[in-house]
Amino acid sequence: MSSLDTIVKEIADEIRQRTDRGEVATYIPELARVDPDAFGLAVIDAEGNVAAAGDSDTPFSIQSISKVFTLTLALGKVGDRLWRRVGREPSGSPFNSIVQLEYERGIPRNPFINAGAIAVTDLILSGHQPREALGEILHFMRFLADDQTIAIDEAVAASEQRTGFRNAALANYMKSFGVLENPVEFTLGVYYHHCAIAMTCRQLATAGRFLAHLGRNPTTGMSVVHPERARRINAVMLTCGHYDGSGEFAYRVGLPGKSGVGGGILAIAPGKASIAVWSPGLDSNGNSHLGRIALESLTKRMGWSIFGV
Amino acid sequence: MSSLDTIVKEIADEIRQRTDRGEVATYIPELARVDPDAFGLAVIDAEGNVAAAGDSDTPFSIQSISKVFTLTLALGKVGDRLWRRVGREPSGSPFNSIVQLEYERGIPRNPFINAGAIAVTDLILSGHQPREALGEILHFMRFLADDQTIAIDEAVAASEQRTGFRNAALANYMKSFGVLENPVEFTLGVYYHHCAIAMTCRQLATAGRFLAHLGRNPTTGMSVVHPERARRINAVMLTCGHYDGSGEFAYRVGLPGKSGVGGGILAIAPGKASIAVWSPGLDSNGNSHLGRIALESLTKRMGWSIFGV
Amino acid sequence: MSSLDTIVKEIADEIRQRTDRGEVATYIPELARVDPDAFGLAVIDAEGNVAAAGDSDTPFSIQSISKVFTLTLALGKVGDRLWRRVGREPSGSPFNSIVQLEYERGIPRNPFINAGAIAVTDLILSGHQPREALGEILHFMRFLADDQTIAIDEAVAASEQRTGFRNAALANYMKSFGVLENPVEFTLGVYYHHCAIAMTCRQLATAGRFLAHLGRNPTTGMSVVHPERARRINAVMLTCGHYDGSGEFAYRVGLPGKSGVGGGILAIAPGKASIAVWSPGLDSNGNSHLGRIALESLTKRMGWSIFGV
Amino acid sequence: MSSLDTIVKEIADEIRQRTDRGEVATYIPELARVDPDAFGLAVIDAEGNVAAAGDSDTPFSIQSISKVFTLTLALGKVGDRLWRRVGREPSGSPFNSIVQLEYERGIPRNPFINAGAIAVTDLILSGHQPREALGEILHFMRFLADDQTIAIDEAVAASEQRTGFRNAALANYMKSFGVLENPVEFTLGVYYHHCAIAMTCRQLATAGRFLAHLGRNPTTGMSVVHPERARRINAVMLTCGHYDGSGEFAYRVGLPGKSGVGGGILAIAPGKASIAVWSPGLDSNGNSHLGRIALESLTKRMGWSIFGV
Repeated sequence: MSSLDTIVKEIADEIRQRTDRGEVATYIPELARVDPDAFGLAVIDAEGNVAAAGDSDTPFSIQSISKVFTLTLALGKVGDRLWRRVGREPSGSPFNSIVQLEYERGIPRNPFINAGAIAVTDLILSGHQPREALGEILHFMRFLADDQTIAIDEAVAASEQRTGFRNAALANYMKSFGVLENPVEFTLGVYYHHCAIAMTCRQLATAGRFLAHLGRNPTTGMSVVHPERARRINAVMLTCGHYDGSGEFAYRVGLPGKSGVGGGILAIAPGKASIAVWSPGLDSNGNSHLGRIALESLTKRMGWSIFGV
Repeated sequence: MSSLDTIVKEIADEIRQRTDRGEVATYIPELARVDPDAFGLAVIDAEGNVAAAGDSDTPFSIQSISKVFTLTLALGKVGDRLWRRVGREPSGSPFNSIVQLEYERGIPRNPFINAGAIAVTDLILSGHQPREALGEILHFMRFLADDQTIAIDEAVAASEQRTGFRNAALANYMKSFGVLENPVEFTLGVYYHHCAIAMTCRQLATAGRFLAHLGRNPTTGMSVVHPERARRINAVMLTCGHYDGSGEFAYRVGLPGKSGVGGGILAIAPGKASIAVWSPGLDSNGNSHLGRIALESLTKRMGWSIFGV
Repeated sequence: MSSLDTIVKEIADEIRQRTDRGEVATYIPELARVDPDAFGLAVIDAEGNVAAAGDSDTPFSIQSISKVFTLTLALGKVGDRLWRRVGREPSGSPFNSIVQLEYERGIPRNPFINAGAIAVTDLILSGHQPREALGEILHFMRFLADDQTIAIDEAVAASEQRTGFRNAALANYMKSFGVLENPVEFTLGVYYHHCAIAMTCRQLATAGRFLAHLGRNPTTGMSVVHPERARRINAVMLTCGHYDGSGEFAYRVGLPGKSGVGGGILAIAPGKASIAVWSPGLDSNGNSHLGRIALESLTKRMGWSIFGV
Repeated sequence: MSSLDTIVKEIADEIRQRTDRGEVATYIPELARVDPDAFGLAVIDAEGNVAAAGDSDTPFSIQSISKVFTLTLALGKVGDRLWRRVGREPSGSPFNSIVQLEYERGIPRNPFINAGAIAVTDLILSGHQPREALGEILHFMRFLADDQTIAIDEAVAASEQRTGFRNAALANYMKSFGVLENPVEFTLGVYYHHCAIAMTCRQLATAGRFLAHLGRNPTTGMSVVHPERARRINAVMLTCGHYDGSGEFAYRVGLPGKSGVGGGILAIAPGKASIAVWSPGLDSNGNSHLGRIALESLTKRMGWSIFGV
């Protein structure tokens, strides 16, 4: 058993014994019902070895983690033009969402807050039918994870749509500034659906490998993006990937990462590994509480922090 | 001539030929008078080799770069208690300064915006006389740079003090929330003076070496901070070191860095090098325009980005 | 010819000679097409005498002036419970709209900004069909103006609905806080339609008479609201009736008033007169430029300011 | 005994029986020590008859009520140029103070919030020595109240100065935008001292009579300001005189008024009376709780609301 295997199992054991679990998201029944004790961790190193523990093969709602992949896809389609519609600075305050949009005339601060991800989705949609755009996103996810079984949880998407008044506010607000091109309901429809993709830790870690290895999957050799773009997506993940807890995540974990309200986190150790963790309880910033703690433990033991080696 | 030497000289040549230089700060005469064409670059690698070019031995006003060192010093004195007075999240908006203080009841977002650095200075002062605190800071800088000639430019300090109404507003505002303990004029006095320290690129790069090498200077073997603290200071530099241009710096340069309004930037390539660059012209976020471009070129050619290797 | 008649005609003459007209609203074609030189003024005194001049019998889009009447109607239906959903403080900044909603958790500052009027409309709707609610509003306007010909300009309503992304953002945002009870599209539909009511200055001044005379129309003797409620609606008009130009209107005109983006203003001289003025060009706060000037002249000559008699 | 006399005494009796008193200001010991049960009311009608009850001859700290008089004095010195330094719109949010200054580049929203009153004080100071400016303000107050015994409570002024970090923040902030001309400590010194003037209800009501009677004291015949200026000061009092409770005061009391944190309120019934009330307990907006209730009762019984007669 490799050292990484051992460490991953030890971390899973430690996490299992903790009683602080954060709060599971309850704004839609599908998330509220998730087992709060679930915990999965999957790490794939440069050689393609997978170290996994816990519920690493249970699918969960990736939610905002999808924003990393839609950003990648949109950059592939429109290139750096994307940055005319979305910034790449941390949003920097609990008052971000719609307040920031008013100050900056409808341009979201970065692609990883809701407004920014909606604007990115609008770029992918770009005149096509929602169904086509969604098909393209799903196809991309399946390609990256090398798994044709990945699917959208339609119940989650429907619940999001039914209760998503704040996202509808953000989208209409951007539309009023001309930042969105497609009908608001089309863009939101695609957005809710890609947030509702269900994946396992193992699938997610596989899908993230290109970010750890200069844009290509070192096992298949398939190139996804140029090395510079991979670095830059990692940079945006580091500064903006955890909402108003991004500074804290960088400080404690020291890796680029993107969290989702379903309790998942994708983290990238450049040159070393792609990591997915899942624990449904959230901290006050909406990021997985134990997921972050597991990652902190992992990077410390493996010496993977990008801030000092 | 080593490859690093060559690259540093090439970059200096390229920068010399550019006509876009940004705008030199003019709020005090001492900065306004600086030669806009000045350019210095000094890189010190893990073995202690120095590659330098241009005006790398001309002292300039380090201004906010001093905040990295006062943070380090304050952490040494009060430990993680420091984080009760200052946050570590990006400030995230051009509306940061005093607006953010009102929303968050006097707690600055991070130690690298003015308000945060004033709060850190107050922790160093901690009941002592301003002269003593300042002596301690200067002593620390001389120790880190291994150079007893480093001094404060008193004319700069006096000008800052005479025109520093906005900093006085920030300090009084924090004082009204009990975030500062010392008399406002004492804290501001020390703050203005440590921002007025003058250093060369070579001295600055030397002073930053402990951050590149897990808390110790690999040449002298002297330990400054624990490895974890070095990593964490780097993390805060990456997310917060360039005001509202921090995301951009991470995206383009891919290194932790801290800029000053005098046109200097200290950047850290963990495990590889400590880098100081100086070009007085600033971009719209108040960061050295050509300094950032030089660093972008350097990290690209050396493959030093922390986001993909 | 009475003194009031003379003064009204003199004012109309003066206004006709001015070349500063403000800017006609252009966000929908129906408003953009309005003759910028149109000007109407109608004043009805306590005895029911009407002094009118200019285009006082030309219907125009009353727009936000309808908010005075929907507030009155909603207070009649739900009483002071209304104030749980809407505040009654001036919004006080050009940054009002959605920023304020975020700070105050979805509760609009007052019933005369868009968000507040949408919330009031939602209270009128209150489970009914949009058509019924709209019928009730129209019925109320016809009753107050004693004119069964008053109608909605359907083209205006349709244009508002087609372009109203910012209002949709406000409504969805309030909905996300539970401040709206009805489906967003129902509430907005009714809102757009009552803003699209077309009336003449004469009709509008008639409709406003109850506010000038302690809640009843002194000619018909019909009571609309209790005296205290009439005073209070006037108070809200004074402090909030002209968006971020409310202070200026009080300072210059000295009467409670409510403006609309169609260029109309309803002003109330308590105990003395109900006044409607119309000039389509707007000032930077979105209030009728010459309408305000005409009212300033009228109150000065008649000695009608509520701030000194 | 006149009807007004009777009503004033009845109101004093009713207030005495109430147990809801609000919270006395405690930020300086001199205010914290004031008897929370104190209550004074003085009303002076157009003929100069005084109806008074309770502690109407006990001096209290007028605090922000002084802003009405410094505004009057400054308008007399610099005329409408004053409005280049200060706006006249309601501040409109609990987030007013320094946030608003950042958005509007150092120009306070109106002369009755702290920042605005500091800017007005700076205009009075205008190059003179603080002692001279203060002498002029005190002389003006004594003239208006026709009472040479009115004095500054030096202990209050000293306490304000010692604890006034937030005001120092506001002043320094405005200074950074060039809105203040004099040394910050001079302007603040005068400001703290005029806020520390002690007056009785009777003196205050006398001093306010010119505002109720078109700019002149009808008993002495002395003219203080032109009628239009009196009306306009009243208008600013109505829209801005009670901070973020100005809308509420207009809604409930229906008179122009200015409150102070010492528990006093000056209210003006144009053409009818000048009124001063004092009860030290404050509501959540910092306005006298029972003072407002007493005024609401008085205007209702006397039919003095400016919003309907």
